[in-house]
Amino acid sequence: MTSINRIERILEGFDPVKNGLDDEFVLTKLTAMKGCGCKVPRDILLRLLQTFKTDLIINNDEIDIGLDSCVIPLRHPGLRLVQTTDFFYPLVDDPYIMGRITCANVLSDLYAMGVSECDNMLMLLGVAVDLNETQRDIIVRLFIQGFKDAADEADTKIRGGQTVRCPWLLLGGVASSVAHESEIIKVDRAVPGDVLVLTKPIGGQVAVNSYEWIKNNKGRIEELGLDSSKIRKAFQQVCEQMSRLNRNAAKLLHKYEAHSSTDVTGFGLLGHAENLARVQKQQVEFVIEKLPIIEYMDEIADRMIEKGGEGFRLFQGRSAETSGGLLIAMSMENAQKYISELSGLDNAPAWNIGRVITKTTDSFASIAPDVVRLSIPSSI
Amino acid sequence: MTSINRIERILEGFDPVKNGLDDEFVLTKLTAMKGCGCKVPRDILLRLLQTFKTDLIINNDEIDIGLDSCVIPLRHPGLRLVQTTDFFYPLVDDPYIMGRITCANVLSDLYAMGVSECDNMLMLLGVAVDLNETQRDIIVRLFIQGFKDAADEADTKIRGGQTVRCPWLLLGGVASSVAHESEIIKVDRAVPGDVLVLTKPIGGQVAVNSYEWIKNNKGRIEELGLDSSKIRKAFQQVCEQMSRLNRNAAKLLHKYEAHSSTDVTGFGLLGHAENLARVQKQQVEFVIEKLPIIEYMDEIADRMIEKGGEGFRLFQGRSAETSGGLLIAMSMENAQKYISELSGLDNAPAWNIGRVITKTTDSFASIAPDVVRLSIPSSI
Repeated sequence: MTSINRIERILEGFDPVKNGLDDEFVLTKLTAMKGCGCKVPRDILLRLLQTFKTDLIINNDEIDIGLDSCVIPLRHPGLRLVQTTDFFYPLVDDPYIMGRITCANVLSDLYAMGVSECDNMLMLLGVAVDLNETQRDIIVRLFIQGFKDAADEADTKIRGGQTVRCPWLLLGGVASSVAHESEIIKVDRAVPGDVLVLTKPIGGQVAVNSYEWIKNNKGRIEELGLDSSKIRKAFQQVCEQMSRLNRNAAKLLHKYEAHSSTDVTGFGLLGHAENLARVQKQQVEFVIEKLPIIEYMDEIADRMIEKGGEGFRLFQGRSAETSGGLLIAMSMENAQKYISELSGLDNAPAWNIGRVITKTTDSFASIAPDVVRLSIPSSI
Repeated sequence: MTSINRIERILEGFDPVKNGLDDEFVLTKLTAMKGCGCKVPRDILLRLLQTFKTDLIINNDEIDIGLDSCVIPLRHPGLRLVQTTDFFYPLVDDPYIMGRITCANVLSDLYAMGVSECDNMLMLLGVAVDLNETQRDIIVRLFIQGFKDAADEADTKIRGGQTVRCPWLLLGGVASSVAHESEIIKVDRAVPGDVLVLTKPIGGQVAVNSYEWIKNNKGRIEELGLDSSKIRKAFQQVCEQMSRLNRNAAKLLHKYEAHSSTDVTGFGLLGHAENLARVQKQQVEFVIEKLPIIEYMDEIADRMIEKGGEGFRLFQGRSAETSGGLLIAMSMENAQKYISELSGLDNAPAWNIGRVITKTTDSFASIAPDVVRLSIPSSI
């Protein structure tokens, strides 16, 4: 089976009828909880886990030990099992693109640690019980195809998985790599003077939600006086970046000697910056001086704030991303080269968004008072 | 934190009030889909996967390639990544025991291949949205504790995981082992003359469901004229065997040179026998001549059949098990020793339940017409 071009697919848009589904069919209506926003709040999980301080450590995004994957010494010298899992609900309507995003999002936790070779993926699939057989066949087939195409692109294979019937559609995966220790970057070596690099713009949650407003047609667009065509464009942009693998970004971490790295997902840019800064060997603070934002999403957040809302806390760096970019600390000189080489490989920009300073306050990460917003147009 | 004795816990029974929950709280009422019965039917999944015949292979229970885990050659000589995942819904009311069962069930897929050392476990947890905060805290804490105690018993650790909010409570895990090829038994070497060994009795689905009838109090017990105290005893028995690790059974596969092995779960004894027989190098059929059944469960199935029901298709070998025993083909001489040594280690019996013959019909596995039912009393 030939793989589908994700960019063409995104630009074309998802037509349920062309895919054998009802005109009315909306995948994201199957759930009220979307993407990385659906995790159990971190404070609740931390509290639940406090009783297990002895030796149960959940090395995932939820816990602030600064590792995106768990890294396990093996019985075989020099080798580590690097492993991560993720599952969530649909946040776009095209099951194919959703499969791509799910796979990219799971792999991203390996990539954040510089591990670019994944040895195996397991696919997790909860098949919604209220789908009829045709819907289920089409959706599951497209989802698997998207997941597989992304896995192919990552030079890995899906060789296991589990399905359950589920009240709602549930999508996820497990990525495992048996890596030599040299394949894993040290993520706790940030030093004052380093700069911070970000490889995808923020604003994903704004793009996905404002696109929902168009579909729901409940007057939110008019209320905020928004431009639907700009939202549609932003939605294509976020689909492209969510389905884009962070693999090139991972490979270059080695070449340009990154000192620290994580990927930006459910806790937003600042949340992940805090988690990462907290575990550095040196006492450092990450200061964010630029916010690269998907074009028009800053305007939407502004309008929401004008109306008394929080604007998804976008400008505070708290807006959730799904399959977001890598956030990296590295030397200024290497950062320039990294950004230049990565932009060429991925055909998408990356930015120097801030710097690492010696920690002087309680804060591990902050948004600079004079932060500059960058409006990032789509590259597709 | 000291581990809880599972046998004492089972015998004591689960008291919601003692655990800080409402008198009315029933974990299994949170879901209508239980244990290994909740998988997507195998024919549907097979159909969905047909389009991916090229190189996407789901090496899990759903697919008849006869491996319970996926086994992946690594970039490092002689090493294999052996990996499996499972997730499902609560089928008993004690979250602690449910955690034990979930962990034992996930590990069982490694054990079925003779892999007794698990290098890492990931925990998958969907936290039901309709729980209040107290319920959620208590349930999740007990579940994690049960999962962890089982992992401790298996000499492995939980070092990763993922949580989502979910309409219903969803429980699962991923088990991974980086094993030398010599640690993995060949599961396709059954030959005519071998006998079949089973390490836990069947009837789990009958026990779990009949116990539900008592709790639901909808007259099913009276209608079938059943003895509630015998059902309660059987429920304890099934809790014990579901939470019992198949690890000793796995270790002894090497010592007694098993020719073939799988674990019995959602497709029932005959379903898994068929899947296993199908992939043997020699053309063989597995004939089941004895059905070891949890005490009283055969009577319940009989009563159901008398009333025109199917009795969970128990006597056809189609009744689902969760965290069931291993089904093994080995030489007669070794089988006797295997059973004897395992019974001592696990303080629970195992049985010679049939034999391997040369395949002469279309059937890969069958229940002998003169099959003998064994009624297996609880060992706790």
